[in-house]
Amino acid sequence: MASKKIKPPKGTRDLYPEDVLRQRYITNAWRDASLRCGFDEIAGPTFESTELYAVKSGEGILGELFQTFSGKGGQETLDKLVEKGKADFALRPEFTPTLARMYAAHAKQLPKPCKWFTAGPYFRAERPQRGRLREFLQWNVDAIGLPSEDACSESKAQMDAEVIECSIRLFDNLGLNSETLNIKINDRNAMAAFFNSLSVSEEQLETAFNLLDRQAKLPADALCTLAQEASLSEAFINFLTQSDSSISPKLDTPDLDTLLSLCNDAQFDQWMSKDPSIARGLAYYTGTVFEAIADGERAVAGGGRYDNLIELFGGPPTPACGFGMGDVVLGNLLDDKGLMPEGAELMDAVARQQASIRPIAFVVPNGDEDNESLVHTLTANLRRGIESEEWRNNDDRKPWQSSRYSVAPIHARVSYKSTRKINKLKADASDQHAKFFVEIQSDNKVELTNMDTRESIAPPAGSWNVDPNSENYIGKAIAQLM
Amino acid sequence: MASKKIKPPKGTRDLYPEDVLRQRYITNAWRDASLRCGFDEIAGPTFESTELYAVKSGEGILGELFQTFSGKGGQETLDKLVEKGKADFALRPEFTPTLARMYAAHAKQLPKPCKWFTAGPYFRAERPQRGRLREFLQWNVDAIGLPSEDACSESKAQMDAEVIECSIRLFDNLGLNSETLNIKINDRNAMAAFFNSLSVSEEQLETAFNLLDRQAKLPADALCTLAQEASLSEAFINFLTQSDSSISPKLDTPDLDTLLSLCNDAQFDQWMSKDPSIARGLAYYTGTVFEAIADGERAVAGGGRYDNLIELFGGPPTPACGFGMGDVVLGNLLDDKGLMPEGAELMDAVARQQASIRPIAFVVPNGDEDNESLVHTLTANLRRGIESEEWRNNDDRKPWQSSRYSVAPIHARVSYKSTRKINKLKADASDQHAKFFVEIQSDNKVELTNMDTRESIAPPAGSWNVDPNSENYIGKAIAQLM
Repeated sequence: MASKKIKPPKGTRDLYPEDVLRQRYITNAWRDASLRCGFDEIAGPTFESTELYAVKSGEGILGELFQTFSGKGGQETLDKLVEKGKADFALRPEFTPTLARMYAAHAKQLPKPCKWFTAGPYFRAERPQRGRLREFLQWNVDAIGLPSEDACSESKAQMDAEVIECSIRLFDNLGLNSETLNIKINDRNAMAAFFNSLSVSEEQLETAFNLLDRQAKLPADALCTLAQEASLSEAFINFLTQSDSSISPKLDTPDLDTLLSLCNDAQFDQWMSKDPSIARGLAYYTGTVFEAIADGERAVAGGGRYDNLIELFGGPPTPACGFGMGDVVLGNLLDDKGLMPEGAELMDAVARQQASIRPIAFVVPNGDEDNESLVHTLTANLRRGIESEEWRNNDDRKPWQSSRYSVAPIHARVSYKSTRKINKLKADASDQHAKFFVEIQSDNKVELTNMDTRESIAPPAGSWNVDPNSENYIGKAIAQLM
Repeated sequence: MASKKIKPPKGTRDLYPEDVLRQRYITNAWRDASLRCGFDEIAGPTFESTELYAVKSGEGILGELFQTFSGKGGQETLDKLVEKGKADFALRPEFTPTLARMYAAHAKQLPKPCKWFTAGPYFRAERPQRGRLREFLQWNVDAIGLPSEDACSESKAQMDAEVIECSIRLFDNLGLNSETLNIKINDRNAMAAFFNSLSVSEEQLETAFNLLDRQAKLPADALCTLAQEASLSEAFINFLTQSDSSISPKLDTPDLDTLLSLCNDAQFDQWMSKDPSIARGLAYYTGTVFEAIADGERAVAGGGRYDNLIELFGGPPTPACGFGMGDVVLGNLLDDKGLMPEGAELMDAVARQQASIRPIAFVVPNGDEDNESLVHTLTANLRRGIESEEWRNNDDRKPWQSSRYSVAPIHARVSYKSTRKINKLKADASDQHAKFFVEIQSDNKVELTNMDTRESIAPPAGSWNVDPNSENYIGKAIAQLM
């Protein structure tokens, strides 16, 4: 055997120690944001049957994948491969088909909703370029199934809000802010109705969404040619090429407005805006869609509602919502903004990035309807933490410094049971191994129970409070008791 | 598209939340032991060119791999595949070829030694059975290159000892002990000399080692037949089938004895024993080989010295040593021994498993030769931590309880520079971002410096001490200062 220098496959990465630490800084931040927002980690195989991808996207997808086969069969396997025109397996290009398969396999026994996240390697057979590799890491965050059968539209909006909140907790944690980064949301149903009003037929809808998805990437004349080739209406083309600004959809739909109101309760609506240009090319989205856009142009994450997909994989009808985010684009963005630590700072930052896997606070309302939005506000504040004055006033502040928080962000959960009976909610907290049970009576009256001892914890004076500025802020008490 | 239930590929795993936590308990323990022992994390591509595996193991290996190709080329790619009889890429079955490729690519710039670890998914096209899956996780720990050009044999033994120590720190941490688990070591050179003395020719050596590797798995008559087919000597067959116990190799070689003496300094030699039946089938081992054997039969990890492999991949001649350990066998062992936590205990255990990525203690001797073994003893004690009396005396003790340590285990490093000048050693500590510099003058005189402030830290009375039972034990001071 001759000595030989062999290169890594094109579009893959050799990661030496500092490179791994930079990647860990990102993947730990993903896990930290997911855990704080009450998502549980799952994982699936690195390769799946080619059939799984064809079910969701058609056989055409196989030309974009790395296909895989067992070498054990030798020449016979190769002959079969040529005959079938494809291999038995493919390296996963995305997680959603695995997620749908895993949910469908145990749909009856699984809790509703399933709030799941996963982070791992994905593969695409495309030409490598800046921001696109053949092997990359992706973070997936999904909420599947509804918490309660009633109040369907409101429940969906709550799931959408929690999924989006998880991305915001990440961006905020990494030092990105709403001036740099925007979550642009749209509603595929509202857009479909609008396209219909522009004389786009049902059969043309998928093409129309695909062209909308490419609006920012192609010049107006190229868009125009493509739309004409698909026989799309003149009105649609005028909208698409932005040559007539009077043609625009109404995005004040009940779904988007409920979502934004929940984001307002959780105090992150300043990160959000409605945008009719967000399409998400994939055919499987069924309602709300969103993208995280940095500097007005770079898509860092994208997702939306996919209410029909679990059924497609043999499960029961199940509403679902989620997003994906890759490590390459996010890493480039952090580098460009000076938001990636180095050396000892990087080592210390990575060591500090560990949210508790055990839920620390389990927040519930008492029976009063008015307290529902207080639950959302407090839970979001617990997940966000409170930044210190000292750090805020420091011109050299960096997001990874240990001085950042006066009240550290914690893993906080809410109950999705439709019951409002405190004992049943406590049982829910106990099933999830929560450490503290937080019952909101009103904005300045909160009960705190240690779930390990079942003892009630009283404040030094007065009552526990949901206001982060108050002396008896419940979040400060929990952070100190942890 | 019809709704369809599709199964995961045979021999792969769908991991739901509790499954992921069990796996994290193992992978976090791997990282924790690696970091404490001063190994840096690296990572490579999930697939490599088939050529890379053929260089190390011959074309025959490709029948045991999952081969992979880009689906982009369509029919043309399939035709080429049949023509060449293999795909361009394969899912990695092991890490060593990637490691050798990565080291060879930057051999000149890399520190000597490179102490590297990695943990990730690996793939083998074999029939799934208990302890063997088609996709599994593996932990690899390697030390590549020698710390100094002089004292070659001693330096090699030190690297062997640190690599083995890392596995012991893991087993100890997970609650396994030397009654359950043994590191069996052997020396391929001593065995080769012994085989020669039994009239085994140079050409027959590889076959002889292969048969030795299968000794425990096959009955005596099957071994005998295979050995006769390979025309091996009667004396060798008597040794192999253990029919003549007077035929046994001498294992008191200088290499093994130096290694055991270093393991004695680090106080883990009770885990070790010499064993002439350890062969490690692979042809690339060149000296010391070892396996971690549980209950006298289950191989949990295996490795050894491979001094020629870096050269084979186009690098300079470079001594190296390492081991691999899979998650499946280890997980089964922990389950069988009642050493896998559940529920809230599992969540808390996983949350606590994070060694500092930044080196906490950097231990150096002053110029005196006698202090070298004190450096090994103290470093090992820092990496091991001191268990509390209270926990030791508790009959219900579990390895993951927070009461376990009176002095927590920490990330400790030594210098591999040949210099003994304190300022140069301090520069080495600083380059590695160490927090504390520990200079051993004698067993009851130790200097402690905070490397961030460069200030010397004095004990409350007397001197810092290397004895874990002393009031001024340096490890206790560092754990409190962290």
